[in-house]
Amino acid sequence: MKSDLLSNIYNPADLRLLKEEQLAQVAQELRQFIIDVVSVKEGHLGASLGVIELTIALHYVFNTPDDLLVWDVGHQAYGHKILTERRENFHTNRQLNGISGFPKRDESIYDTFGVGHSSTSISAALGMAIASKLKGDLDKEHIAVIGDASIASGMAFEGLNHAGVTDANILVILNDNAIGIDPSVGALKKYLTAVKNGKNPKQNNIIKSLNFDYSGPIDGHDFPTLIKELNRLKKIKGPKFLHIVTTKGKGLQQAEENQVKYHAPGKFDASTGEIHLKSEENLPPKYQDVFGLTILDLAKKNEKIIGITPAMPSGSSLKFMMEELPERAFDVGIAEQHAVTLAAGMATQGMIVYCNIYSTFLQRAYDQVIHDVALQDLPVIFCLDRAGLVGEDGATHHGVFDIAYLRSIPNMMIYAPLNEIELQNILYTVQLGLNHPIAIRYPRGRGVIPNWEVENFRHYEKIKIGEAKCLKDGTEIAVLSAGTIGNNVIEALKESTHSETIAHYNFSFIKPLDIKTLKAIFSTFKHIITIEDGVKNGGFGSAILEFAASNNFKNEIEIMGVPDEFIEHGTVNQLQQICKVDVKSLVNLFSNRSK
Amino acid sequence: MKSDLLSNIYNPADLRLLKEEQLAQVAQELRQFIIDVVSVKEGHLGASLGVIELTIALHYVFNTPDDLLVWDVGHQAYGHKILTERRENFHTNRQLNGISGFPKRDESIYDTFGVGHSSTSISAALGMAIASKLKGDLDKEHIAVIGDASIASGMAFEGLNHAGVTDANILVILNDNAIGIDPSVGALKKYLTAVKNGKNPKQNNIIKSLNFDYSGPIDGHDFPTLIKELNRLKKIKGPKFLHIVTTKGKGLQQAEENQVKYHAPGKFDASTGEIHLKSEENLPPKYQDVFGLTILDLAKKNEKIIGITPAMPSGSSLKFMMEELPERAFDVGIAEQHAVTLAAGMATQGMIVYCNIYSTFLQRAYDQVIHDVALQDLPVIFCLDRAGLVGEDGATHHGVFDIAYLRSIPNMMIYAPLNEIELQNILYTVQLGLNHPIAIRYPRGRGVIPNWEVENFRHYEKIKIGEAKCLKDGTEIAVLSAGTIGNNVIEALKESTHSETIAHYNFSFIKPLDIKTLKAIFSTFKHIITIEDGVKNGGFGSAILEFAASNNFKNEIEIMGVPDEFIEHGTVNQLQQICKVDVKSLVNLFSNRSK
Repeated sequence: MKSDLLSNIYNPADLRLLKEEQLAQVAQELRQFIIDVVSVKEGHLGASLGVIELTIALHYVFNTPDDLLVWDVGHQAYGHKILTERRENFHTNRQLNGISGFPKRDESIYDTFGVGHSSTSISAALGMAIASKLKGDLDKEHIAVIGDASIASGMAFEGLNHAGVTDANILVILNDNAIGIDPSVGALKKYLTAVKNGKNPKQNNIIKSLNFDYSGPIDGHDFPTLIKELNRLKKIKGPKFLHIVTTKGKGLQQAEENQVKYHAPGKFDASTGEIHLKSEENLPPKYQDVFGLTILDLAKKNEKIIGITPAMPSGSSLKFMMEELPERAFDVGIAEQHAVTLAAGMATQGMIVYCNIYSTFLQRAYDQVIHDVALQDLPVIFCLDRAGLVGEDGATHHGVFDIAYLRSIPNMMIYAPLNEIELQNILYTVQLGLNHPIAIRYPRGRGVIPNWEVENFRHYEKIKIGEAKCLKDGTEIAVLSAGTIGNNVIEALKESTHSETIAHYNFSFIKPLDIKTLKAIFSTFKHIITIEDGVKNGGFGSAILEFAASNNFKNEIEIMGVPDEFIEHGTVNQLQQICKVDVKSLVNLFSNRSK
Repeated sequence: MKSDLLSNIYNPADLRLLKEEQLAQVAQELRQFIIDVVSVKEGHLGASLGVIELTIALHYVFNTPDDLLVWDVGHQAYGHKILTERRENFHTNRQLNGISGFPKRDESIYDTFGVGHSSTSISAALGMAIASKLKGDLDKEHIAVIGDASIASGMAFEGLNHAGVTDANILVILNDNAIGIDPSVGALKKYLTAVKNGKNPKQNNIIKSLNFDYSGPIDGHDFPTLIKELNRLKKIKGPKFLHIVTTKGKGLQQAEENQVKYHAPGKFDASTGEIHLKSEENLPPKYQDVFGLTILDLAKKNEKIIGITPAMPSGSSLKFMMEELPERAFDVGIAEQHAVTLAAGMATQGMIVYCNIYSTFLQRAYDQVIHDVALQDLPVIFCLDRAGLVGEDGATHHGVFDIAYLRSIPNMMIYAPLNEIELQNILYTVQLGLNHPIAIRYPRGRGVIPNWEVENFRHYEKIKIGEAKCLKDGTEIAVLSAGTIGNNVIEALKESTHSETIAHYNFSFIKPLDIKTLKAIFSTFKHIITIEDGVKNGGFGSAILEFAASNNFKNEIEIMGVPDEFIEHGTVNQLQQICKVDVKSLVNLFSNRSK
């Protein structure tokens, strides 16, 4: 393959020097470039492959960065990054101090709006468009590229509903590939499919009804059609909507055929597409699978159990239950707000609802947690996946606020299991009869118990609500940890000097706190250290400070956790180092304090 | 007027004994009953008057409480409450220990779901409907009554999008009166108006496109039409949608003609409808008007200033700016998520955006505050109206979580003015150039400075970021207050014994904290008392504890604020008593501590 076009494109100005006939070659080279890098460095694949032509066409037709381009979610923006001055850095994607896996304002003038969570693009682009108009920039275009899974989220509807009654220069491009991370769901998806299939209504009346100049659906991989339509839309003022149809994973056969797996496939063979399988033998299970297998097992025995996921059946492993018990396991699409209140509605009728939402995405449903669940004291079970530092997805995705934002809500219990066994046992315990809502938070990735499924799965034990446990005795210092970060403490204590002076308590129950144990700890140890993988402001450590203040304890208390700044991307271990809660930092801390 | 039907209706079973021809008389009596009580006891008026016929028809046709009825928002549910065993208690509406102004599960089996915030009804009813189906209750109906302002909120769309692909027995009734608290806005509103006016499309295609069995629009005040249609729908399984047209305030001429004012008119003459005006002379201004007048004044001088409200132009007093500078003041409808990200988009283009959202409603946009504003460190100005205990609206509306949920967000500043002057001065200060987002929280109701507008308005002074102020010297105890609750402290110190030993510091800046002043305080005073009108878990007091722990101060610290329970409705003073932060409780506290 000739590879002499892409390497001469530093930014879109260079792209615009090419003839339209050359764009197909740019597309081919860009696709191959992404495949070559992602196959080795890992990252999101399918979404970017699907919008290669759109990405090139947008930068070719519009005058970026003056025209403002907002990518919804942003995991499809690799092509955009490569064409906008970041080709040479693209191999650092998602690495510590490398470029972000998502558009990010700090990184490039072409990244007009930082993204990561879905469905923000229309609101952001509309804000820019209104601002431009007020500033007298009447010719500037403001473009939101949004997928069919994201546009079904409520926030996107709010943006459309407002944009439709403005005269702002906004172009919403619906990239309709019928899939988010998992296949899209819902009535709107069904409707869009009918539109694409040429069924009545032939045009997209929902969008036209919202007062947009609607065009499409058109083939999003066909340059002549795309370029012609974008050029036409460029001349039209006010709110416009273009519906394009694309194939996720386009250009890599296996990625087209297995779109869920190739969303973020890990390492693979760049020429064949074959994924390099790692041996999973003797590895501890993923917490996700502990959840997914346990809820399935419990649901088989208890017909009141229901599972809900907002668009993450694969990521959360609720897929196991969806396959075997489809009538009681629901993917509601990217709709966290609805997911929570749906769960509340079900709970009023006596159902036992496990509502599985990534910690960072539960922020979307904070009001519903307070207003619909906790205020009514409905025993909904929130399973907060990807709590704590998530690693390479970075600042938009870390689940570090949940302890702080949930702890202030009355009636809400918060449990952070130390390991796979505690996770399965709390999932078992809560369905025995719970009088309050509970949030169970656990991290992305693997646990600490090899062969968990063989040796421990189905050996359920009931957990005593509100009980902390002493994991190790000591004399001078008590370390109080919440959740899986406690495993770092266990490791660190093995390596610390004078560790015999240090006791370790596991506070899986962050709320309610084990007051009796706390009183004993504060009466015994002079120095208390709390450790959590969440923000220190208002988190578990603060709860301990509140306990101490209200009980007149004057012990020295040291709080370890995520500092008051946004933590970027990197491996979990690198990010833990930044927060000083990795094993090595803890060894140093413990060794210093026990001197 | 004969008044012998309503007084014999204890619950809907009695209503169903009547002939259909008698319902009009019930409607007349019910309307008068509401007018009579609300004219004296105050409360929401217009919304309930508008759905009298619908309320009666629903309870007449359906078998409540077995059929499950969810009222969206719930301020229209007075008729429902009176017909469901609460006629004799209705005069206690919104009073401490009286019935709630909103449906509430604890209060009645007919209140199937607690409401207050908008747009939850479809999700809740769908959850109930799916649960019924799983339990084998195949004939049960599940009804969500939702207004045209509420259905435009994203969450409602999420509910519709899911419901449309289920076979659950859910009936969504759109009560279309073209108004929320203020007139409805947005593209959907425009579309619904076209539908009502018989313009093409003649039927509501948006709803049909989402896979609902759609009927309407019909006259929501016409019993024969309503009853016939509800009876027809009762026989249809699966998701159904009925579009009815009503007039808010129906039956009281002045309420029909002035729908914004008669949403919650205060006391009025039950026969003429005339509102009893209170003399406002020499009263301090409402904080809302301080905001509204100040932003207007500032915006006249600074053309970068933009104001945004999600559906509260009257309540927030942004209406002043909307009237005079309509191109820079936006009512985006009930769309808090969109409001925040729209503001972020504008801020990227250098606009100075005041995004005014009630504290309790900002919970709806928590993710957008973190992900779209704070993470990008965009200097959006959040004006959090109705922060703290709001009084009669009760548990759903108290703005008591904001300090806790905002304090954990990096880059976010939090300011709680002590009084009107601090509010206007911070509004002035932030538009001089701000490098971070800020949340300015202030309560519902009047301030403490009579003739503020005459004497202080436009005497702007720049506030120093992060500075606390000593309001009163002392020797033993330091009281640290945040926000207007500090006025209770000022009053209480006047009446406390030994108050000469007590110093008072005003921490308007909750974040960043004035570390220098704090160090001086902790070095001088043995005993520290913090006071806030927000939750104690994770709030301002916790921030002070965190400061003390990280600086090794061992002072005694006592935290006053809202305890870890939901506070119900009552006057603000009554609720402050419950939280022990009213003047009298503080007098006792100070007198005891200074002994």
